[in-house]
Amino acid sequence: MTAPLGAGLIGAGWMGAFHGESLARRVPGARLAMVADPAPGAAARLAGPAGGRATTDPAELIADPEVEAVVIAAPARFHADLVVAAAAAGKAVFCEKPMALTLADADRAIAAAERAAVPLQAGFNRRFDASFAAAREAVASGRVGTPQLLRSLTRDPAVPGGFDPARVPPWTIYLETLIHDFDTLRYLNPRAEAVSVYAVADALTRPDWKDRGLLDTSVVTIRFDNGAMATAEASFHAVYGYDIRGEVFGSAGMVTAGDVRRDTMTCYGEAGAASATWRRNVDLFRDAYVAELAEFTACVREKRTPPVTGQDARAALAIALAAIRSVQAGAPVRMADIETAPAAAR
Amino acid sequence: MTAPLGAGLIGAGWMGAFHGESLARRVPGARLAMVADPAPGAAARLAGPAGGRATTDPAELIADPEVEAVVIAAPARFHADLVVAAAAAGKAVFCEKPMALTLADADRAIAAAERAAVPLQAGFNRRFDASFAAAREAVASGRVGTPQLLRSLTRDPAVPGGFDPARVPPWTIYLETLIHDFDTLRYLNPRAEAVSVYAVADALTRPDWKDRGLLDTSVVTIRFDNGAMATAEASFHAVYGYDIRGEVFGSAGMVTAGDVRRDTMTCYGEAGAASATWRRNVDLFRDAYVAELAEFTACVREKRTPPVTGQDARAALAIALAAIRSVQAGAPVRMADIETAPAAAR
Amino acid sequence: MTAPLGAGLIGAGWMGAFHGESLARRVPGARLAMVADPAPGAAARLAGPAGGRATTDPAELIADPEVEAVVIAAPARFHADLVVAAAAAGKAVFCEKPMALTLADADRAIAAAERAAVPLQAGFNRRFDASFAAAREAVASGRVGTPQLLRSLTRDPAVPGGFDPARVPPWTIYLETLIHDFDTLRYLNPRAEAVSVYAVADALTRPDWKDRGLLDTSVVTIRFDNGAMATAEASFHAVYGYDIRGEVFGSAGMVTAGDVRRDTMTCYGEAGAASATWRRNVDLFRDAYVAELAEFTACVREKRTPPVTGQDARAALAIALAAIRSVQAGAPVRMADIETAPAAAR
Amino acid sequence: MTAPLGAGLIGAGWMGAFHGESLARRVPGARLAMVADPAPGAAARLAGPAGGRATTDPAELIADPEVEAVVIAAPARFHADLVVAAAAAGKAVFCEKPMALTLADADRAIAAAERAAVPLQAGFNRRFDASFAAAREAVASGRVGTPQLLRSLTRDPAVPGGFDPARVPPWTIYLETLIHDFDTLRYLNPRAEAVSVYAVADALTRPDWKDRGLLDTSVVTIRFDNGAMATAEASFHAVYGYDIRGEVFGSAGMVTAGDVRRDTMTCYGEAGAASATWRRNVDLFRDAYVAELAEFTACVREKRTPPVTGQDARAALAIALAAIRSVQAGAPVRMADIETAPAAAR
Repeated sequence: MTAPLGAGLIGAGWMGAFHGESLARRVPGARLAMVADPAPGAAARLAGPAGGRATTDPAELIADPEVEAVVIAAPARFHADLVVAAAAAGKAVFCEKPMALTLADADRAIAAAERAAVPLQAGFNRRFDASFAAAREAVASGRVGTPQLLRSLTRDPAVPGGFDPARVPPWTIYLETLIHDFDTLRYLNPRAEAVSVYAVADALTRPDWKDRGLLDTSVVTIRFDNGAMATAEASFHAVYGYDIRGEVFGSAGMVTAGDVRRDTMTCYGEAGAASATWRRNVDLFRDAYVAELAEFTACVREKRTPPVTGQDARAALAIALAAIRSVQAGAPVRMADIETAPAAAR
Repeated sequence: MTAPLGAGLIGAGWMGAFHGESLARRVPGARLAMVADPAPGAAARLAGPAGGRATTDPAELIADPEVEAVVIAAPARFHADLVVAAAAAGKAVFCEKPMALTLADADRAIAAAERAAVPLQAGFNRRFDASFAAAREAVASGRVGTPQLLRSLTRDPAVPGGFDPARVPPWTIYLETLIHDFDTLRYLNPRAEAVSVYAVADALTRPDWKDRGLLDTSVVTIRFDNGAMATAEASFHAVYGYDIRGEVFGSAGMVTAGDVRRDTMTCYGEAGAASATWRRNVDLFRDAYVAELAEFTACVREKRTPPVTGQDARAALAIALAAIRSVQAGAPVRMADIETAPAAAR
Repeated sequence: MTAPLGAGLIGAGWMGAFHGESLARRVPGARLAMVADPAPGAAARLAGPAGGRATTDPAELIADPEVEAVVIAAPARFHADLVVAAAAAGKAVFCEKPMALTLADADRAIAAAERAAVPLQAGFNRRFDASFAAAREAVASGRVGTPQLLRSLTRDPAVPGGFDPARVPPWTIYLETLIHDFDTLRYLNPRAEAVSVYAVADALTRPDWKDRGLLDTSVVTIRFDNGAMATAEASFHAVYGYDIRGEVFGSAGMVTAGDVRRDTMTCYGEAGAASATWRRNVDLFRDAYVAELAEFTACVREKRTPPVTGQDARAALAIALAAIRSVQAGAPVRMADIETAPAAAR
Repeated sequence: MTAPLGAGLIGAGWMGAFHGESLARRVPGARLAMVADPAPGAAARLAGPAGGRATTDPAELIADPEVEAVVIAAPARFHADLVVAAAAAGKAVFCEKPMALTLADADRAIAAAERAAVPLQAGFNRRFDASFAAAREAVASGRVGTPQLLRSLTRDPAVPGGFDPARVPPWTIYLETLIHDFDTLRYLNPRAEAVSVYAVADALTRPDWKDRGLLDTSVVTIRFDNGAMATAEASFHAVYGYDIRGEVFGSAGMVTAGDVRRDTMTCYGEAGAASATWRRNVDLFRDAYVAELAEFTACVREKRTPPVTGQDARAALAIALAAIRSVQAGAPVRMADIETAPAAAR
């Protein structure tokens, strides 16, 4: 019987809290050894019931010998440095999306993991959702032929981080939200890469936020090097629920995944038929969040390469940066031009 | 170019009116030559716009040389005599369900059509619904194997004939409504016949009508001679719409047909997902009602045997009579015992 | 009893044939008085069974005193001139899409109808589909709030006119196919107009046709003056069926319409659950095709303005022309720039 | 921080194994203290990784002071005695269905738990499925009015215990399978009790087993004291998957729950639309199995009465016994006659 993997969690916000509970109870072969969060008491509240230790200093967690793997759920602006530090300390790394906010930082993170020869997994949970995984399997097995038209959308009942523009960074819709869709489109269009990106965006729900840089609605068109055309779409104000869907149309068929209807209960009355909808990502993606950490744990223990790599994180980031550039320019942007460009202003 | 078939319609109630308009405009190869209805003016209102003639006397219609085929949509108690008279006059006959109210009358009607060698088609429209026909095709082609469990249900938003127990005959739920389901079960279980029937029934919506013989809810269990077990179910008070569904479970799979949702529009709001439902049989079965008359017309013109025969009408009636007997007896009834039984009291 | 409207049909191809049969049998208050088609015998084959006359000369049809209304289903390049001629002759006009291929021609057609004070209806049949009409009603009644994200797609099992690039004009995907989606987006976003258009397109199924100008796949992004962002999408090679769907996301909810599943029959076997799909537009839109002519007939007889106007035809055409321009330029195009532009090369 | 509840598991078959893993890892506030199973090594294989102890003797487990609650997943014929013994030892009891095979045994078990004042929960997991719970909530809140027609069905891809008639007890279809549906019907028809039962059954898939008493297909009709009519249906040979559905039709509407389609992925190809289906109960009911133990654990710790009581177990058993009697008699059976009847021969 192998001892469970000692996991250290950095960040005890809502995502960190869920990951912490997963490591403590839901992920086979893992244990929550330590939690780091700057907020007083936050780490202890999470680590305590699991028998783990707490700190306010991520560096202490990274250095701790009981911590074999680091799970990063801190704010995005710290991600790249934390990956570099954890990798440098020889720890396996799971990093929430976005792994970095610039390509240079993404490259630094990837290089650090390669140099240290530690596993590095990016937190694109949708790849672990049963329906999206089945869609990918349908594509990979050739059932839909060569992908030609793709769609991925995210509609959030509320802006991530709450509706406080002072706390929500500009370009959040691309760097935090649509980055999931960019990864999903790559996942559903295997072996293809983006060639050009065109994005339109606005603050439709809260026009007053537009001046403060907070866009809440966007449509992005992406061309891939296998000819496929993809659309990614996001809104931060879906009053009807948490709506995540994907679609791949190809030369031999189509596959769809996702439904905002929450369960199989339908109620029929004088007003017609009614079904309930998903309201929170932790409800819709509960199993996927656990599965990505279970796979990460298994990869570390079995010395396998994680299925979502640092390169995947970089590729989705590059599309997000191209979308930002496209909105700024009001024109399509070639991915080749993103590689050499200076970082978007934050 | 053959001249269109001259059709005579007996009965200008709502079903007759729809059939009349179909014969006038929707059915290829037919024309509405004449309408008979005892209500003053009813026949003329229907026949006039189509260039047909009107009468209050069915016998006159049956005798008219322009009338080549008779469509019977009069009240059920007149059906058998009208079939006999029309057949005796050498006219092709389409008769709404139930073709008769006793087996003796059904036999008389069948014998008259055979003697005159005229086509006789029974008005089981569900066989002409695209989804039910596709289900039958799935069964007939072997896709679901040998049928083992079947279900057919009818839920009406309102009792046929309006909620006036003085005008609704007793046992209407079996003779007018569930007779559709009994035919559907035979249609979906080809080459099998009913062996025994058990029915429970009540007046749940209007308990005061129970004493007056008007049952509004029933569940019927039928065993077939191929071993299959079937359930037929009806209610006269579906507040959510007009709900018609069928299901066949067999040794190699299952097929389902029917959905109370009316179209593909779904509206999502704070309360969840909502769809509209069917409200009237003429909306749900519009195409099926037209198709059954089109098939009848084609059969007459091409001298083919209609696909829903007098024997089909008799077989469904026999199950209805067995269900009535079962309710009266509070026990299962063998079909064999129905054949020799006196008619149910009306 | 008013006499039925005498309708003259120009064009006896498959769409014309369907319209001709509708005028002859399915549309209340109309009759097929005459058919014009240059192909020898085509007009007679269609008009004969309906008791109508035939000609190879549209001008003869337009001039005929029995023809009160002209239904134009000729090839698109003749549409505008035929509208002008019919209007000049004082005839009501129903014109299949596209009503014109240039804005100047569209303006000529509109002006001719206005000058003659005759009704002019454009053939956007999806507005008459029950599900799309219900979606529009949901939007118009405010159930989804202000539209913010829209989608309309057309996936055809085969390129219109057959896969002969010699016979399919360039830009067909915009002028013949996506023009439906452009109209649908306007229909589902009432009182808003397009502001800018960005289109990507390719010949993915038949790359060899790209040089011959036949594009088979396209994604179009449209911004509207109420802030809404819309996507229109088309393919000429959907092996799984005829797939037409629409979606409106707004500040108060979402509405969806369309489903490629053909009926409610589902078959479950060892391989899972299976449903049949729509294969032909005349099957999916049969009722809508009839309904648009019924509404046109009613408008003519009741002297009402048709619900789909020449201005609607012009607005959808303008978006199509902008999409063509965008593909040529590889950049977004402002609608304002289309108004003064020379026509796209054909 | 309260210490976790020490749970002892009796029975390490597939259901026991799943419950054991749930107690070890998935159920908050519980731990797997001990496992008892007569098969050499079975208990140790399950308890070991969780740090629990193993025994072949249930009595030893029941007597162990670390065991505060006993979870019974042994074969059904041992259930009642184990409940009595565990209760007598002052332990809280969770017992898989059926809790007993005779009403006398059920009464003994209930009396033992009452005497000892220990919580007793019956293993009707469907009550903890999100969709069935939502259906119940819809009924309880009055959204469907008074239940009038109900349906519950279980279709298993394979007979429980494998297709060995020597090992499958007679009447398994009622005592092990349909007992779930009987409970579901009571759950969906709150405050009503069964009045009479009529059952038909056969060995349709394996006719040769009929003589050996193994029925594989059954339809049961139940009348309730609130007038409702219910159908329960089971088959042991659903080649298309694990199909569990429920439906309640009432005076104010209808609610449905359950769908054999496994996820939201649909694949469209030349053959139409295709979806995958559930294949195993542990996949479909994974969350429900965990939730029932989590609720049991919470009830024990918070000294609440469990939501599924010994009386619920007895009531479902009584319906099962009535169904058996009905098959034997070929006639409907009144529930009142079951209470005083001798046990069915096993």
